[in-house]
Amino acid sequence: MVRSMPLRGGRPQAPTAPTRWQLQNTVFAAESQNQPSASEAVVSSTRDAALQRRRALTTDGKAATLVQGSVGGGRVRSARDQRQPGWVRRDKGATSGVPFNLSRSSLPITNRQHPLTDTAANARLRAYEQEVKGRFDRIVPLLQRVSALQHEPDFIEQAQRLTRAELGFDLPQHILERAWVRPLDMRALFAWCVFESHRLFSDRFFQDDPLDGAAGSVAARDFEQFLLDCGIHLLDVSPCADGRLAHTVAYALRIPFSAVRRRSHAGAMFDVENTVNRWVKTEHRRHREGMPNPSTEPTRYLKVVTYHFSSLDPQHQGCAAHGSNDELAAAAGHQRLLDFREAVENSFCCGASVDLLLIGLDTDTDAIRVHPPSRDSEMVLDQWLCARELHAATASMTADQAMAQIAEAIEAGASGPMEPGMVAFLTRLIANNCSQIDYVQDLHGAPYPDAGHAERFIGVGIGFKEVHLRNLTYFAHLDTVEEGAPDLDVGVKIFKGLNVSRDLPIPVVVRFDYSGRVPGARERAIADCQRVNQAIADRYGELVNQGLLHTCLTVRDRNQTAPAEVVGSTLAPPLQEAH
Amino acid sequence: MVRSMPLRGGRPQAPTAPTRWQLQNTVFAAESQNQPSASEAVVSSTRDAALQRRRALTTDGKAATLVQGSVGGGRVRSARDQRQPGWVRRDKGATSGVPFNLSRSSLPITNRQHPLTDTAANARLRAYEQEVKGRFDRIVPLLQRVSALQHEPDFIEQAQRLTRAELGFDLPQHILERAWVRPLDMRALFAWCVFESHRLFSDRFFQDDPLDGAAGSVAARDFEQFLLDCGIHLLDVSPCADGRLAHTVAYALRIPFSAVRRRSHAGAMFDVENTVNRWVKTEHRRHREGMPNPSTEPTRYLKVVTYHFSSLDPQHQGCAAHGSNDELAAAAGHQRLLDFREAVENSFCCGASVDLLLIGLDTDTDAIRVHPPSRDSEMVLDQWLCARELHAATASMTADQAMAQIAEAIEAGASGPMEPGMVAFLTRLIANNCSQIDYVQDLHGAPYPDAGHAERFIGVGIGFKEVHLRNLTYFAHLDTVEEGAPDLDVGVKIFKGLNVSRDLPIPVVVRFDYSGRVPGARERAIADCQRVNQAIADRYGELVNQGLLHTCLTVRDRNQTAPAEVVGSTLAPPLQEAH
Repeated sequence: MVRSMPLRGGRPQAPTAPTRWQLQNTVFAAESQNQPSASEAVVSSTRDAALQRRRALTTDGKAATLVQGSVGGGRVRSARDQRQPGWVRRDKGATSGVPFNLSRSSLPITNRQHPLTDTAANARLRAYEQEVKGRFDRIVPLLQRVSALQHEPDFIEQAQRLTRAELGFDLPQHILERAWVRPLDMRALFAWCVFESHRLFSDRFFQDDPLDGAAGSVAARDFEQFLLDCGIHLLDVSPCADGRLAHTVAYALRIPFSAVRRRSHAGAMFDVENTVNRWVKTEHRRHREGMPNPSTEPTRYLKVVTYHFSSLDPQHQGCAAHGSNDELAAAAGHQRLLDFREAVENSFCCGASVDLLLIGLDTDTDAIRVHPPSRDSEMVLDQWLCARELHAATASMTADQAMAQIAEAIEAGASGPMEPGMVAFLTRLIANNCSQIDYVQDLHGAPYPDAGHAERFIGVGIGFKEVHLRNLTYFAHLDTVEEGAPDLDVGVKIFKGLNVSRDLPIPVVVRFDYSGRVPGARERAIADCQRVNQAIADRYGELVNQGLLHTCLTVRDRNQTAPAEVVGSTLAPPLQEAH
Repeated sequence: MVRSMPLRGGRPQAPTAPTRWQLQNTVFAAESQNQPSASEAVVSSTRDAALQRRRALTTDGKAATLVQGSVGGGRVRSARDQRQPGWVRRDKGATSGVPFNLSRSSLPITNRQHPLTDTAANARLRAYEQEVKGRFDRIVPLLQRVSALQHEPDFIEQAQRLTRAELGFDLPQHILERAWVRPLDMRALFAWCVFESHRLFSDRFFQDDPLDGAAGSVAARDFEQFLLDCGIHLLDVSPCADGRLAHTVAYALRIPFSAVRRRSHAGAMFDVENTVNRWVKTEHRRHREGMPNPSTEPTRYLKVVTYHFSSLDPQHQGCAAHGSNDELAAAAGHQRLLDFREAVENSFCCGASVDLLLIGLDTDTDAIRVHPPSRDSEMVLDQWLCARELHAATASMTADQAMAQIAEAIEAGASGPMEPGMVAFLTRLIANNCSQIDYVQDLHGAPYPDAGHAERFIGVGIGFKEVHLRNLTYFAHLDTVEEGAPDLDVGVKIFKGLNVSRDLPIPVVVRFDYSGRVPGARERAIADCQRVNQAIADRYGELVNQGLLHTCLTVRDRNQTAPAEVVGSTLAPPLQEAH
């Protein structure tokens, strides 16, 4: 694990912080070292061609090439800027500010593990991703084999045996039994397999804590203490609902999932009023129970927006909710953060306020960019720190040197003096992200092959604490279809491309978490599932009637670690009429 | 105003509390005095015939006649009960428990003002009700005259002059201008007039505070202090959404509207989770701002459910949401209260709890029945105090004697020892209700003529603080039509009977309050109006297409006293195409 920086009071001091000239040369040295060996050359040539093609798509000025001599801040550098590079603050005293703010990564891929990379965690996360996604990816091949058996005399036994062996569950008997009368309903079987695969991985998540992030785990307790040391009593993250950000918490930022409140929304446009209510609940608990710390402690509620962009195909693979316009995505997220803070400051007395943080995620490499907030949460939209650049620039350092360098770059990148706690927190995030940058490169040899959408099912409702994998789930976080229709329509459109185009149905898992402490809450959660199920049937009637959209209704008691409970499905056997 | 009882510490002592024998004789004496004078006899004979007819409808045992000698508690007296009348608690020591718990009022109507009746307030409330309802009742006669003019040469001028004089606003010019081409769209004009009448009375409510109950008014401040003296820091009332309970707060209970949180729901089935959130907000404010009092004060959050019944036609005019079954309505309300308390006690530490109160309202007489809660909020469903009986039994006393007697009866009616504050609070409610009992009798000569529904418009959404009149508005309190559809369907069904049967449209006012302190909240409130408007058009397409359902969209900043703002309507003139 990356050792946390000495925080209390003093700025994180690197043992021997390299001078700016050394760092700049390290950047160029790092680039030259990365010439691929002969054998690697062939493997990456096809990929380079693809990358070159995509890079050509980037409009002029968007993919700012490395400006010789001054590694500009993450801004499109105009003539006016030449005099003072975005990241260097003259009035900040003679700091050896580290110039690591390239907006577009043009750095080649380095296969060496970064000194801050947690290889053990990478191995564990890799095994988990491959195990879960493997489940879903074995469905179609399995069903193709089942399809070929449908006219065999002992078809049902063979099909069940095969499926149990391959996927670990049975197929629905009532559908197999009709194979002699009419062609096997492969769409229904496909949806069933997706729902069962989801159920198995969901059960395992809550029972075994494969990501080692459950409430009370060592990782969670350590991180919660670290947050308090950073002056943060609640971390509330709103990534965009796009499936390529579903793994933001557990993979990209390497945060124990139970130590953070996650609310995904299309375009990361979280609900201000709902978040103010969450702030009130948090403060009430601190006042009443001193949890996580007494209200007298000068810690803050930190709201984070994670927008996203595609470094390789910005025009088409950026954030659909913001028309694949990166500036718009960042600006809208920033404004929503400011609205939230203003709402809290306007509505409550005695200095009530919150801290804000804007993070971007490159969905091709999982590298994050951080807009470092000054002490009063002022952020500059077109000024950020790119983790990938920092990864490259510190790759040849010791772990401690790298941490110190990252911290230095963060402070240099802010528009004003920063809280030491926030510097430490961002240093930890960027350090963690180094592991994920290496993870993606190791697993895929560089940017993700599935640059676009490749989700396996749509998650509708409130919950899905167990979903932490990229491109597994498209989230439509909603109480009602009436309010969430825009998000859900985007999801259905994506799945028309992914599934319906292959004549496969859209699998929709509906989930409503509830609090088992509230009498009648479970029944209301089931009623919410049924209401949303009906609203989906009304809105997408045609798809449902053609068997091209199936739903599985689930509820879960959020006060327990018990897995979700299936309470209904379009695939359930028809009820036998009672005589 | 009725002097509040000496509360702190001691039980409210009547100067000379009449013995039980005296009280029983007073009851019979009161009955004999009420023989109507000759002139009154004719007026009430037709009404008596109507009442007899309705009373005949009541099933056997429901309308328990006055059992000679022992004025039973508000229970259907079975043989088993003879030994111990419901209201008398043997183990409570020798109290001169007052036997005032008749379940069905068979008491004749007394025209003398009760000593606790606030005649000045009654006059003010009467003028307000007649003024506002008068507006709506003048619409049809006015439109009938306008209809007759539609082929006059100066039709538009005449129509506008007439409408301005009669109703105080103009008719929509763009509809009048088409009178020469096609028959006047009277449905549209009717809906327009209802919406404009609503706008005028709503504006007046917020500008002039005709009910003298706005935040900061003397009445509100006094009542808030009285609540605190009673040990209550927040009064949260959930009446049924039926229009016959819309006046529960300002008329039936005579509580300043700003001193109470009102959330109407069909069958009074308030949302437990939403109310727990409101409890958290209340506690947070006490912790953070010491408002309305510091969290260290031993006061409580009081949740009240007001169910309803019809003493004259219990089978048909009771609560539709509970199948006009009074016991079911009371039991469901009671269970919902218990669920709320359990949710708070389960979810928060350190003795977090709430107080509960169950009240029934007779929609024929506005008389309330109170199920007095013991110290730990234990209530007995089939044991209550009927304000109408107490009104009759104390009619000939002095005001102080009446207050003392009511307090005595309340304590005697509880299933265990009561908090003195709760006794004082209920005494005040019953005393206030005496004014309303006299109000109804004065205005209508006894039970309301409109025993059933007679609402003028449907109110959909979140808000309507200004609606405090009986049978003016059917509330569908909802965030989305998807969730509120059951309530809204009931409202539409009622208005099919009231309006569509007369070929008149259903006027639906959509309202979303917002907090002006939250950036973007107004725009989101407008978007909510438009979303709900679309959902209504989808759900009731046929009615909308025939012009038999019209909507008016309004928003209001709940942090201001400014009136609501109209932001859209099905009657708005079509937008001119920009060239």
